[in-house]
Amino acid sequence: MEENKQFNHCVTNVRIKPGFWDDRLRLNRDISISHAYRQLQAAGNLDAFRMACEARPAAEHSGFRDSDVAKWIEAASHSLITHPDADLQQLLNAVVERVVSAQQSDGYLNTYYTIMAPDQRWRNLRDNHELYCAGHLMEAAVAHFEATGKRTLLDAMCRYADYIGTAFGYEKGQLRGYPGHEEIELALVKLAHATGERRYIDLASYFVDERGQQPCYFDHEAAARGEDPEAQHPHRQAGERYAYYQAHRPVREQDTAEGHAVRAGYLYAGMVDVAVETEDDELLAACSRIWRNIVERRLYIHGGIGSDPTGERFSVDYDLPNLTAYAETCASIALVFFAHRLLQNEPHREYADVIERSLYNSILACASRDGTRFFYANRLACQPDVMVYGNRKHEFRNPPDRQPWFGTACCPTNLTRFLPTIGRYIYSEKPETLWVHQFINSKLETDVAGGAVRLMQQSDYPWEGQITFTVESRSSATFMLCLRIPGWCRKAMVGIDGGTHQPVEPDMDGYVKIKRDWAGTTSIVLDLDMPVERIKSHPAVRHNAGRVALQRGPVLYCFEEVDNGTCLHDMILPIDSEIRLSDVDTRIGSEIPGLTASGLRRDPSAWQGKLYTANPSPRIPCTLQAIPYYLWNNRDSGEMIVWIQTGNDDKRDNKASQNYETTNT
Amino acid sequence: MEENKQFNHCVTNVRIKPGFWDDRLRLNRDISISHAYRQLQAAGNLDAFRMACEARPAAEHSGFRDSDVAKWIEAASHSLITHPDADLQQLLNAVVERVVSAQQSDGYLNTYYTIMAPDQRWRNLRDNHELYCAGHLMEAAVAHFEATGKRTLLDAMCRYADYIGTAFGYEKGQLRGYPGHEEIELALVKLAHATGERRYIDLASYFVDERGQQPCYFDHEAAARGEDPEAQHPHRQAGERYAYYQAHRPVREQDTAEGHAVRAGYLYAGMVDVAVETEDDELLAACSRIWRNIVERRLYIHGGIGSDPTGERFSVDYDLPNLTAYAETCASIALVFFAHRLLQNEPHREYADVIERSLYNSILACASRDGTRFFYANRLACQPDVMVYGNRKHEFRNPPDRQPWFGTACCPTNLTRFLPTIGRYIYSEKPETLWVHQFINSKLETDVAGGAVRLMQQSDYPWEGQITFTVESRSSATFMLCLRIPGWCRKAMVGIDGGTHQPVEPDMDGYVKIKRDWAGTTSIVLDLDMPVERIKSHPAVRHNAGRVALQRGPVLYCFEEVDNGTCLHDMILPIDSEIRLSDVDTRIGSEIPGLTASGLRRDPSAWQGKLYTANPSPRIPCTLQAIPYYLWNNRDSGEMIVWIQTGNDDKRDNKASQNYETTNT
Repeated sequence: MEENKQFNHCVTNVRIKPGFWDDRLRLNRDISISHAYRQLQAAGNLDAFRMACEARPAAEHSGFRDSDVAKWIEAASHSLITHPDADLQQLLNAVVERVVSAQQSDGYLNTYYTIMAPDQRWRNLRDNHELYCAGHLMEAAVAHFEATGKRTLLDAMCRYADYIGTAFGYEKGQLRGYPGHEEIELALVKLAHATGERRYIDLASYFVDERGQQPCYFDHEAAARGEDPEAQHPHRQAGERYAYYQAHRPVREQDTAEGHAVRAGYLYAGMVDVAVETEDDELLAACSRIWRNIVERRLYIHGGIGSDPTGERFSVDYDLPNLTAYAETCASIALVFFAHRLLQNEPHREYADVIERSLYNSILACASRDGTRFFYANRLACQPDVMVYGNRKHEFRNPPDRQPWFGTACCPTNLTRFLPTIGRYIYSEKPETLWVHQFINSKLETDVAGGAVRLMQQSDYPWEGQITFTVESRSSATFMLCLRIPGWCRKAMVGIDGGTHQPVEPDMDGYVKIKRDWAGTTSIVLDLDMPVERIKSHPAVRHNAGRVALQRGPVLYCFEEVDNGTCLHDMILPIDSEIRLSDVDTRIGSEIPGLTASGLRRDPSAWQGKLYTANPSPRIPCTLQAIPYYLWNNRDSGEMIVWIQTGNDDKRDNKASQNYETTNT
Repeated sequence: MEENKQFNHCVTNVRIKPGFWDDRLRLNRDISISHAYRQLQAAGNLDAFRMACEARPAAEHSGFRDSDVAKWIEAASHSLITHPDADLQQLLNAVVERVVSAQQSDGYLNTYYTIMAPDQRWRNLRDNHELYCAGHLMEAAVAHFEATGKRTLLDAMCRYADYIGTAFGYEKGQLRGYPGHEEIELALVKLAHATGERRYIDLASYFVDERGQQPCYFDHEAAARGEDPEAQHPHRQAGERYAYYQAHRPVREQDTAEGHAVRAGYLYAGMVDVAVETEDDELLAACSRIWRNIVERRLYIHGGIGSDPTGERFSVDYDLPNLTAYAETCASIALVFFAHRLLQNEPHREYADVIERSLYNSILACASRDGTRFFYANRLACQPDVMVYGNRKHEFRNPPDRQPWFGTACCPTNLTRFLPTIGRYIYSEKPETLWVHQFINSKLETDVAGGAVRLMQQSDYPWEGQITFTVESRSSATFMLCLRIPGWCRKAMVGIDGGTHQPVEPDMDGYVKIKRDWAGTTSIVLDLDMPVERIKSHPAVRHNAGRVALQRGPVLYCFEEVDNGTCLHDMILPIDSEIRLSDVDTRIGSEIPGLTASGLRRDPSAWQGKLYTANPSPRIPCTLQAIPYYLWNNRDSGEMIVWIQTGNDDKRDNKASQNYETTNT
C-alpha cells in the first residue's frame, strides 16, 4: 500500500493531561462506558450475538442494534489505549468473542438478518442498516486491534469486508448497491490503514461513487422486493426522491448538504478519505462545496447540523429554528469527522474552528454532568409544555430532559466512543511542521525534523485564554510550530521563554508560525484575548433577528429559567449592558464562570389579562445570568434560550408610558 | 315554545348598503357561490345524493361531503333573502329536491353511510361525521325555509332530527353517544327557533351535557367495533384521551379551549344557545371561562384560533406561532358564532371587538380578490421554501397560495354561507334599546319602543372612522341607542344633528348611549379616531417578542416581499418612525390605504459568507410598505410578516461599526 497522503491521520501518541478534558474522559471511563454496557445488556443488544450464534429467534430486534455494540467496543478500546484497565479489557475481549462467534461461514455478520430474516440479506439497503452495522464493526475492529494488539475482530472484519467486496461492485453477478445509511465508507478506509490492504480503499471508493447514479439502485431493489419504486417510503418528502440518503445525484455533482444529517456527515467524511487516498480533486472539490454550504448556511452556533426534526435532516439554507432544532449529537460528531479530514488535508483554522465549536457546545451538551443521561437532539431553546412538532418517533414535549438510553441508542454510544479519541484532534504533523489545532492539556511525543520531540500544553482553557507550550528536544531540530489563532479571537499575543508577550497576527490559514531550532526546552505562552462577545447571525436567519448569543472563547452561553425566571424570550440584554464573569453560585461548579449582566424584562402581571395592547409596555430592570450552554438541563427543568434580544428602544418606551393613560385595545 | 330570551337572535330585516361589505357580498353572490356549485359538482358531492337515492355504489366517498352541499344550500338561501335571483332559486330548489330524495324512510340522511356502509350507522361517532353533516343539513333547512318559505328541506330535517332524537338519549335502548365533530347542537337550536319545537332544544341539551361524561362513550363504541379503546386513534396526542373532541371532561367543568378549534367553536356556540334557552347559569359560566381563556391566551391578532397545525387545534396558553399558524378559516367563523351568542346574551363590546377582529382579518383573508381561491389555514408569516411542519394531510411548503378547492372543502363553503349573513351581526335590540355593534353600511327596519324605526348607517369604514347614523321614526319613540366604541379606539366624538362633535367616553360595557325621543329624523355622527397603532403582544407570546403589529382601526396590516424585498423578519420599524398612509400603487386597489414608514434593514451581501459574527452589522435605511393583512397573497407569492421588529439600538450599532476593524468570528 502506498504512503498515506493524509497528515497524521492517527496520532495515538498523545496523552491527555489533567484539566478540562481529562475530567470528561474520566467520567466517560468511570461512568458512561459501564452505564452503556449495562444498557446494552438490558436492551438485548449483546444477547443478539449469542442468539445469532445459536440460531435462536428473538422476540424483537432491529437492524440498528449491532452498531451500538460496535461503538461500545470502540469506546472501551480507545479508553484502554490511554488508560489500561484489566477488568475492562477482559470484558471487552469477552464481548469481542461473542461478536465474532455470530459471524457466518461466508464472513457475513449481522444479528438481525441472521436471526430474523436469513434469506433477506442485502435486499433492502435503503431502509435497513446492514452495511452501516458492518462499518461500525470494522471501526470497532481497528480500535480493538490498536488497543489490544489482538487480531480476533480485525481478521473477522477483514473476512466480512472481503465478502462484501465480492457481493458489491461493477462485475456481473455483483450488486450495484450502496448503503441507505453511510458509515462503511470511512470504516473501510480505516480498515485499509490498519491492514495496509488497498482493496478496502477500492471498495470504499466504489460505495462513494455509486451513490446517486441513475437509474437509482433503491428503485431497482424496491422493484425486486415487489414494491412500487414510486411508492412513498419512510423518508421521502414531497417532490424529492433520495436526497434523504444523499442519493439524489452522484456525490461528485452535489453542492449542498442534504438529507439525514448523520448519514450526510459520515458520507462526507468518507468522501474526503477516498478523495485523499485516490488523489481525486473533483471529489475533493465536491467536499469543499458541501462544506461551504454547511458553514455558511446550515450550521447552528453550537456546532450542530440537521435542523429539521421531521427527518433528522438538513433543512433549506438559513432555516435554523431554535426551539425545534434537531441537531442530533451523532450529527455533530459526524461533522467533526468531516472537518477533521479536511483539516488533515489542508491545515486551515476554519476546520479546527468548527471542530472546536461542536466540541465545547453541542457534543459536550449530550451527556449530563453525572454521565448517565444523554441528549439525542440538541435544541437551542426550551419552552416547557409547548409541543415540538416533529418526527413522530422522537415526538416529545419540552423540556426534553436527557434520557438514560434510547431504543436507537446511537448518540450515547457515539459520544462514549468519541471522547477517548479527543487526543487525535489536537495536533497534526508533517516532517518539518507541527500544528496545534486545539487547546487541550496534553503531551505529544513524536519525531519531527529527524528528532524526538516532546510537546506539552497546559492551560485553564476554555475558561482562560493563556496557554503554555513546552517544547523539548534533546537534539537540534529545526521545524515550524503552527499555533491556531481561533476565529473568535480578535487579539493574540505570544511570549517565548519568559520574554515580553508580543501581539501576533495569524497567517492567511489562521495559524501563527514559529520556526526555529528547538534544541533544549522552550517555553511558549500563547495569550488569546477572550472577552464575552455578542454574536449576531446572518440576516436571513429569521429565528435570531434582533438577538445575540453570548460566547466567550469557544464556549456558547445560554439562559435558563432556574436562574432568570420565565418569559426568557421577552428579556432584553441591552447592547450597552456590561457583561461580567459571575461569581454567583449556580450549582454547576464553582470553577465554571457564569455571566451576569443588567437586563430588562416586562412584568406579565401588568398586562391585566390583555393579550394585545397599543399601550406602552414598560420594562423593568433585572439581572440576567447565563451559564455555558453545554451545562443546561442539569439542574431544574424549564425554559432555556441561547439567543437573547438586544433591546428595543426601551428608554423611550418607558418614557412614553408616563405620557399615556391606560386605554384599551 | 316559550319566548326566546336571546336578544334579536335573527335580525333578517337588515339590508346591506353600498360600501365595503356590499362589494364583498356581491363578489360572493356573483362569483363564489357559482364557483362552489361547480366545484361540488366536479367533486361528486351532489351526485352522491343521487347515488344514495338510487342505491348506487360510489368509487370514492367520505363522511364529510354532505356538509359542503348543506353549506352551499345555506349560502344560496342567505343570498336570496336579500338578493332575489330566479336562476339561483331554481338551482337551489333542484339541489334541495335532490338532497331530500336521498332521505331514508326512517328519516336518516347521510350519503356516505347509505352508499358505502348502510349497516354501520352511528357506529363510529368519534371519527366519522354523521351528526356533523346532519347539523349542517338542519342549518341549511332553516335557511332555505327563511329564503323561500318552502318547507321541503325543513320538514325533512325535522323528520331526521326526530329520528336522531329516538336514536340518542338517556332512555333504555338509546345510544348515549354524541358527535366527534360538534355542529348539530347549535343547528338543533336553530331548528327549534324555526319550528317552535322545544324538543330540539332538549336534544341539543342532551348532546351538550353528555359530552365528556365518564366512562367515555368513544371508548364504549370503540370496544363495540372490536377495537381497543386504548389504541392510538387518529387525533389522540400523547398523554391525553379525548381533548381533541372536547370530551376530556363534562363541558360544564371545562375551563380552557381545547382540541380541534372548529369543533370547539361550534360546541361553545351551542353551549351558549343551550345555556340561554334553559337559563343554565352553570353552563354559561363555563362558556365565560372558556371565552376568557381564548381572548386572553389563545387568540391570534387576526382573530384566528387553533394555532397547532398538527391537529388543527388549540395549543397551550400563549403558543401563537406565526409561520406555522393554523388558524383555520372555519375556526374564525366558529369563534364569531360563539362571540355573537355571548354578545346577544350580554351586550359588551369585548364580544363585538373579537367579531370585528375576525371579520376584517382572518375571515376576509380566506378568499382571493377574485373570489375563486381560498385559504384553509391563515398564517401570520410566510417564508418561501421553508417546510412547515404540520398536519400531514395539509402538509405544504410556503408560500401556501390560496387554492380553488379542497378535498374537505369546509372553509370555502363556510365563508360562502357566512358572508350573506353579515347583516345579523350589526345590531341587537330589546324593547327599549337598540345596539349598534358593527359599522357596516346598512339599513335596519324594526319596531322599538312601540314604533316603527328605521336606522341607517353610512361610512367609509374600515378606512375612515367617521360613521353617520340616520334614525327615522314617524312617531314618538323613546329608546336608548347604544353605539359601540371599539376597544382599539382611544378617542371618540359624537355630533347630533349637525352640532359640534363632543368627546364621549363609553360606559363600562363599551357603548356610548343616547336616550331620547327619536321622533322625526335624527342624524348622528360618530367619529372614531383611527391612527395607525403599534400593537404589542403579551410577554409570554415568545414569537412576537421585540415586535409590533400595525393596526389601523380594525384592520391589521402586513408586510409582503413584493413591496419590501426579502428578509422581512430582520427588518426594523423604529419605534419613533412615523407611519403614513401611503399613496403608492400596490396593485391592490387605489381605494385601499397602504402604510409607509422609514425602516432599517441589514445588507446580507455585507456578510461575505459569514453565518455568525461578533462584528457590528450596520443597518441601512429603507422604506417599509404595509398592506391590509386580508389582502396578502393576491399579487406575487413570497415572504410575508405581520409582526415587525421595533429596533435594536441601531444608531449605536452603526456608530460602533466605524470603530471596529473587520475581524473574524
